[in-house]
Amino acid sequence: MTNDASIDNSGLRTHRTTLTRKPERGAHDFETIARILDEGILCHIGFVAEAQPYVVPTAYGRDGRVLYVHGSAASRALRALSGGVPMCLTVTLLDGLVLARSVFHHSMNYRSVMVLGMAQEAHGDEKLRALQTITEHLAPGRWADARPPAAQELKATTVLRLPIDEASAKVRAGGPIDDEEDLSLPIWAGVLPLALVPRAPVPDARLDAGVALPAYVRGYRRP
Amino acid sequence: MTNDASIDNSGLRTHRTTLTRKPERGAHDFETIARILDEGILCHIGFVAEAQPYVVPTAYGRDGRVLYVHGSAASRALRALSGGVPMCLTVTLLDGLVLARSVFHHSMNYRSVMVLGMAQEAHGDEKLRALQTITEHLAPGRWADARPPAAQELKATTVLRLPIDEASAKVRAGGPIDDEEDLSLPIWAGVLPLALVPRAPVPDARLDAGVALPAYVRGYRRP
Repeated sequence: MTNDASIDNSGLRTHRTTLTRKPERGAHDFETIARILDEGILCHIGFVAEAQPYVVPTAYGRDGRVLYVHGSAASRALRALSGGVPMCLTVTLLDGLVLARSVFHHSMNYRSVMVLGMAQEAHGDEKLRALQTITEHLAPGRWADARPPAAQELKATTVLRLPIDEASAKVRAGGPIDDEEDLSLPIWAGVLPLALVPRAPVPDARLDAGVALPAYVRGYRRP
Repeated sequence: MTNDASIDNSGLRTHRTTLTRKPERGAHDFETIARILDEGILCHIGFVAEAQPYVVPTAYGRDGRVLYVHGSAASRALRALSGGVPMCLTVTLLDGLVLARSVFHHSMNYRSVMVLGMAQEAHGDEKLRALQTITEHLAPGRWADARPPAAQELKATTVLRLPIDEASAKVRAGGPIDDEEDLSLPIWAGVLPLALVPRAPVPDARLDAGVALPAYVRGYRRP
């Protein structure tokens, strides 16, 4: 019933990214990892400052085997991370609630990716390309329309690169897995699928009436 | 235009949870924090093991000023955290994409909460109540229907409690904030709202045909 991803040990796997429990839910092949990263809209980055871990939501983008995140040069997270400290970048897609007959077997269907590594600051051409990658990740087609960053805007922005060198995916799909003896209980069991969907676009109050809604906003969907 | 939450310094604020940038987006009042925690379905927990931060998605529940997370007693995350190490629990609700005229002012509308602290293992009555809290958080009404945990299931589960003592909320809402000189550019600007919505429930393949779909699944919505 459970449609777990298979393991493909392709170099992204280390003892730190190997699932110690339910290894059948783990995947280390780049295709699975890339697909989840591309569908996600925001990530959570984890870093340590003064022995305290922080988990902060932020935008990101993927260019091949490199992830980019950006933020104000003044941000605490970006300043901590640009010093070359270990980080974790996690993307989670929530696909549904799994309601089993027993409390114990309740679960969620989800797909998540965890990438470990040291971030490095991106500069020059790479920095501009990274901002394009992050903008296109948010809304494919947007980069060509929007006003490009000015020199002082680039200066006020820090971009970090994180190579996808050590990573894992975890996938839980399918229905509940109840114990055999619970199957005849008169308790509803199944999955309530969840989806992140766009609603009607809200134009800016000061938008010129003659500016049309772009197709990539009207027909917005994740890859 | 931006409907930022106001700051209410009520004791949950420390230098570690005070926003160093855009403090107008920060909130430390318990009501704002509780509302975001209650609407979220999954959280990301951050912890450090061998100098490496990890960020892992998991279910949670709130009982007053205490958060609970649970997992297999064998899980790496739960074992690391039950040793009494600093953790961070973050919940993020993604509300929309903010498309500004300039690349620089692109953003997302979101509401997030970050809770810092040391987790402690919950035992006995508290442990059972915590599992009720987590189950009810997932699907309110579910605890009364599902088969309660058996003794060996309780034993195989670790529950951690994290008091909401040091926490902050961050809220970004409203339209893009473009520079005045960009307002006349012929570029569409506005917000694409996003919502996490339930789809049609999928009954378990082995569900007895006589078992009705509960109202809390049919009419599922977050508080």
